[in-house]
Amino acid sequence: MNFISDNTASASPRVMAALAAANDGPAAGYGADDWTKRVEERLSALFEREVAAFLVTTGTAANALALASVVRPWGAVITHEESHIVEDECGAPEFFSDGAKLVDLPGIGGKLTPEAVTRALGNLNEGSFHNVQAQALSVTQATECGTIYTPAEIRALKEAVTARNLTVHMDGARFANALVTLGCTPAEITWKAGVDVLSFGGTKNGAWAVEAVVFFDPGRAEEMKWRRKRAGQTLSKGRFLGAQFEALLADDHWLDLARHANGQAKRLADAVGNGGEARLAWPCQANEVFLILPPATQERLTAAEVRYHSWPGRSLAPDNALQDGEIVGRFVMSFATDPGEVGRLIAAISG
Amino acid sequence: MNFISDNTASASPRVMAALAAANDGPAAGYGADDWTKRVEERLSALFEREVAAFLVTTGTAANALALASVVRPWGAVITHEESHIVEDECGAPEFFSDGAKLVDLPGIGGKLTPEAVTRALGNLNEGSFHNVQAQALSVTQATECGTIYTPAEIRALKEAVTARNLTVHMDGARFANALVTLGCTPAEITWKAGVDVLSFGGTKNGAWAVEAVVFFDPGRAEEMKWRRKRAGQTLSKGRFLGAQFEALLADDHWLDLARHANGQAKRLADAVGNGGEARLAWPCQANEVFLILPPATQERLTAAEVRYHSWPGRSLAPDNALQDGEIVGRFVMSFATDPGEVGRLIAAISG
Amino acid sequence: MNFISDNTASASPRVMAALAAANDGPAAGYGADDWTKRVEERLSALFEREVAAFLVTTGTAANALALASVVRPWGAVITHEESHIVEDECGAPEFFSDGAKLVDLPGIGGKLTPEAVTRALGNLNEGSFHNVQAQALSVTQATECGTIYTPAEIRALKEAVTARNLTVHMDGARFANALVTLGCTPAEITWKAGVDVLSFGGTKNGAWAVEAVVFFDPGRAEEMKWRRKRAGQTLSKGRFLGAQFEALLADDHWLDLARHANGQAKRLADAVGNGGEARLAWPCQANEVFLILPPATQERLTAAEVRYHSWPGRSLAPDNALQDGEIVGRFVMSFATDPGEVGRLIAAISG
Amino acid sequence: MNFISDNTASASPRVMAALAAANDGPAAGYGADDWTKRVEERLSALFEREVAAFLVTTGTAANALALASVVRPWGAVITHEESHIVEDECGAPEFFSDGAKLVDLPGIGGKLTPEAVTRALGNLNEGSFHNVQAQALSVTQATECGTIYTPAEIRALKEAVTARNLTVHMDGARFANALVTLGCTPAEITWKAGVDVLSFGGTKNGAWAVEAVVFFDPGRAEEMKWRRKRAGQTLSKGRFLGAQFEALLADDHWLDLARHANGQAKRLADAVGNGGEARLAWPCQANEVFLILPPATQERLTAAEVRYHSWPGRSLAPDNALQDGEIVGRFVMSFATDPGEVGRLIAAISG
Repeated sequence: MNFISDNTASASPRVMAALAAANDGPAAGYGADDWTKRVEERLSALFEREVAAFLVTTGTAANALALASVVRPWGAVITHEESHIVEDECGAPEFFSDGAKLVDLPGIGGKLTPEAVTRALGNLNEGSFHNVQAQALSVTQATECGTIYTPAEIRALKEAVTARNLTVHMDGARFANALVTLGCTPAEITWKAGVDVLSFGGTKNGAWAVEAVVFFDPGRAEEMKWRRKRAGQTLSKGRFLGAQFEALLADDHWLDLARHANGQAKRLADAVGNGGEARLAWPCQANEVFLILPPATQERLTAAEVRYHSWPGRSLAPDNALQDGEIVGRFVMSFATDPGEVGRLIAAISG
Repeated sequence: MNFISDNTASASPRVMAALAAANDGPAAGYGADDWTKRVEERLSALFEREVAAFLVTTGTAANALALASVVRPWGAVITHEESHIVEDECGAPEFFSDGAKLVDLPGIGGKLTPEAVTRALGNLNEGSFHNVQAQALSVTQATECGTIYTPAEIRALKEAVTARNLTVHMDGARFANALVTLGCTPAEITWKAGVDVLSFGGTKNGAWAVEAVVFFDPGRAEEMKWRRKRAGQTLSKGRFLGAQFEALLADDHWLDLARHANGQAKRLADAVGNGGEARLAWPCQANEVFLILPPATQERLTAAEVRYHSWPGRSLAPDNALQDGEIVGRFVMSFATDPGEVGRLIAAISG
Repeated sequence: MNFISDNTASASPRVMAALAAANDGPAAGYGADDWTKRVEERLSALFEREVAAFLVTTGTAANALALASVVRPWGAVITHEESHIVEDECGAPEFFSDGAKLVDLPGIGGKLTPEAVTRALGNLNEGSFHNVQAQALSVTQATECGTIYTPAEIRALKEAVTARNLTVHMDGARFANALVTLGCTPAEITWKAGVDVLSFGGTKNGAWAVEAVVFFDPGRAEEMKWRRKRAGQTLSKGRFLGAQFEALLADDHWLDLARHANGQAKRLADAVGNGGEARLAWPCQANEVFLILPPATQERLTAAEVRYHSWPGRSLAPDNALQDGEIVGRFVMSFATDPGEVGRLIAAISG
Repeated sequence: MNFISDNTASASPRVMAALAAANDGPAAGYGADDWTKRVEERLSALFEREVAAFLVTTGTAANALALASVVRPWGAVITHEESHIVEDECGAPEFFSDGAKLVDLPGIGGKLTPEAVTRALGNLNEGSFHNVQAQALSVTQATECGTIYTPAEIRALKEAVTARNLTVHMDGARFANALVTLGCTPAEITWKAGVDVLSFGGTKNGAWAVEAVVFFDPGRAEEMKWRRKRAGQTLSKGRFLGAQFEALLADDHWLDLARHANGQAKRLADAVGNGGEARLAWPCQANEVFLILPPATQERLTAAEVRYHSWPGRSLAPDNALQDGEIVGRFVMSFATDPGEVGRLIAAISG
């Protein structure tokens, strides 16, 4: 049983069917195709305002391009110390931005607090040429710990950075998973709460390889066409990207896929405590379950041939710290997760 | 009729079928999947030596990553002034290499000559800290003018740069098209002739989006895994890349696709001169036909609703210069080009 | 009275005289002059081994060039969160290194501990292409809090990073000040303790504008001539740099200058506690005194027209935290500090 | 006798005296000193409009910072193929601009023509994301061939790039030498003729190490303070830069120094043709004389122990091409050139 990641899954059958349907005859290259154009229009409708959207192939590219668009090379991006841009992108944000600095803050459950952000801003002198300049805040939704920000929490973070005029970026590799839990509109958790630019993930949610960088103020996107091309992210057969994203958006397929993944995660989370000695590291709010696993549980999982990632415990609350021999285990559900396997996982954990 | 580019085509049905077949169950992420591993092995077999291969999504990424791997930021890459890296990548090689310089040389038919390369090297002081340092030579195969280099020509270029220890890169976005004309082995036109690193194109030859950066000395590829990830080119669902390339290589499908494209180009080239006033700008040696079009021919093409690119005449031989009102028109054939359309194109040109 | 910084001072009269003497007739350009050559030889003698030295104009350039020479663009440099490279160089290390990451650690008195470094290394996965790679450790000597590392402390840090093969850089903008307190040889506090590359400061210690990047393994310096030139730091009239540094080294002038500065700092530090309510923030071990100033003391200083920097209290020990209304004030002594002014400062603080 | 370069000279006695006078007591750091402020005001007066000026230590830094301020990383700078930014700065413009491209054009006597610039613009597609974008034109005054542009010639170049909205940069490492020949005002040859940003050289004209980047529209200089600091070019003891430049500007000392250098160059140029077989490569219009030297003359110079650079002949007019055994020799005069030595040089050349 493999609960390593949501990107070990394949593509959703509907995505695959859309690709097959798109594989017919010539089409304009480099994003001028009809599929891509329809996606751009649909995203404006989805977000209830005109947006500028750019399709790329990876979340790393989406985040790095988004951040490079909103900070200068001597800029600083305030973010969580376990965020994907800090931990999992091999320095892509620094590369794409020509050297901007990520200011990494701790935070329980992978979340930034207005207090921590305010303190960090206090250490970054505004206007002084001796210092890098705070220019963006990046939050992850859902976070690396499987938690989510409410619109009110995003608004509070926005308020904390408004006086310094920071741009707010949301890494939404698991945006769909957050949204189905929140039950709000895409607009409410993004621009209405203060988000300026969103990395809208497709790959972890049933696509092969597509993410959209969405600017809620199209005026800020003017340079993106050069940045994307220069990064080798402007696909000549652009319909490949457009067709995938269109299939996700059609009939709310993206939300259905996320709902399945979240539902399986909730099953596992709910089962914890009903037996066995594992406990939740953080609340399960999306499609990932983080469990604190005592040695005996670890052994049972090994015996059951369950594959999962062990995770750093840095973001645990003090009153939920690791005890001797315990580790944090990450179990990720995807659109393709087999409910039967989740049942067997629950059985293995419960002992 | 659309002869704009070979990348307005879709994907080959066999590539599409391979993707559909790969869309089944979980697979290891980030290039550790079985499809990608099989491609890596197959490339070593194809090139008759152990190679290090890295799959990416675009030719721009392949070229820029390849060059960044072999030059320092103060390095110089000698190349043709109409090469893709100079004209069509929006500065990606400069970006990925942290600022290396492309030294752009003229050359008839899009080809570099040993003499021009030697002259350029003479202008770049070796070892002086005042100057950028010549560290790579990049050739395009087939060239931007639809011509090809023979193994002997590549060897002569290699000899011109050996004393200065330059790395030879081949941009093989249309490598398959060159190869079916040359009739030699992949090894003979690459490492046996002096090529150190190859951008091996798939996208223009029937894939959705896949290119391989192939290092003939795997020792030089040690940093590529960081470079590729940092560039946002390491796909989490790596089998998407592997399955495409595997389908191309299986049963020499890639050569069959190129053979079709080249054959249609040859039909067009052969027909020129048998009527009408157009003439060849350069010899047709791959899947592109460049025609010098007098005004009357241009009008006939417009009337027939033929779409094609007009092309700069910089690389024309002096005895084949443009006359009043003439332009160069580029007609590109792909694996998907309909022979019937080529017939109608020939008719339109012939008048 | 101005105790803002040691760089508000002018140049030492002996440095000025050396410049005047050097201002005579033609000399080879770009560092090939006799003054520079003599400095290079003298530095090898001073450090008791053959070194490769590169003179530049600022500490920021020295640090950034040194670090860029020893990390890759996807590398990470572990350092103190209040170090000059983090706080005062506007992102120069990121710029010169093409995007490497500074990993900022807290530490009492501006000092890194082996424990903190080991913990940081634990968060940076070795060899994984998902992550930036820890490649250097940078320590400041004397630190930004006016404290110093002993050779044993440097050795312990070296040991903490040896298994991961990190290069150790020492930012020695105030190297002379540290050395006169330590009383050891330059070799003992650098390469003998594990330092690989040193930014050897001149400007804060009586020069106009000169720092030396010193590589204790000349083999690691091979690319520096290109890096320095490319950074606009290779002065055509190189003797200007050479003559300054030669004057500092002659007759141990650099140590005499530092001794004066340190002595004045010690006077102030010793006086604290003998009256008034200020107390030391950290031990005074070089030429800077950091005092925790209650409101009454602040007022007296204002009344006496004493200029000083207020300093962040992040590196205070928990048992020496700021109380209501207290701030940390920094008082810097230089070679040129007037002992009479220090007396008046002591009087103003003592009340 | 050494005619290698004007930067083998020392500093003018007046510059040295100004430094000595400035070496007194504390001063504000990082360019906030009185000397620097006075220079900034004086430059506004000199150029007859409010300018924003930034002092740095080298011409390479001045040029690279100026260009980085006016182009994007995907921008292109049109310039002469023998310009300092192309040939002598080891890629600094590419480094500081995060990868912009220099488009190198040929031109007789080191000069760009409107025709060549217009042709180059024609090869750079405006607005297309496939291509780097032409954003600046850089001219050298006096040129690398010792020639100068008249205000009318600068205006014609400006007109050639106005429709494409390029910024015009002037590399004025030898601005003073050009100006004393032109006899116009500094304003007339800069902003009144269309120059937007000037690298105003001091080092080659009697300073130790100072150049000013002068923006004629201060609004375009807003980011320079960060760029300069980040490049390690913001000297802490900024008065060192200010005092040098102030000494140059006082009493038109800079023009007197250039007049001496130009006068000695004119003596040599005038003497050619009055005997011996050398001839001028290009008109002598500033402080450099380029002579085409037949073998016999080369031998006489060697015998007389005259040191000079041999220079590429790429910019020679077709009717003045090199014959068998001829080379171009560069003889540079400075403020410090001894007229007696010039006499002996003339004698050696005349034979």
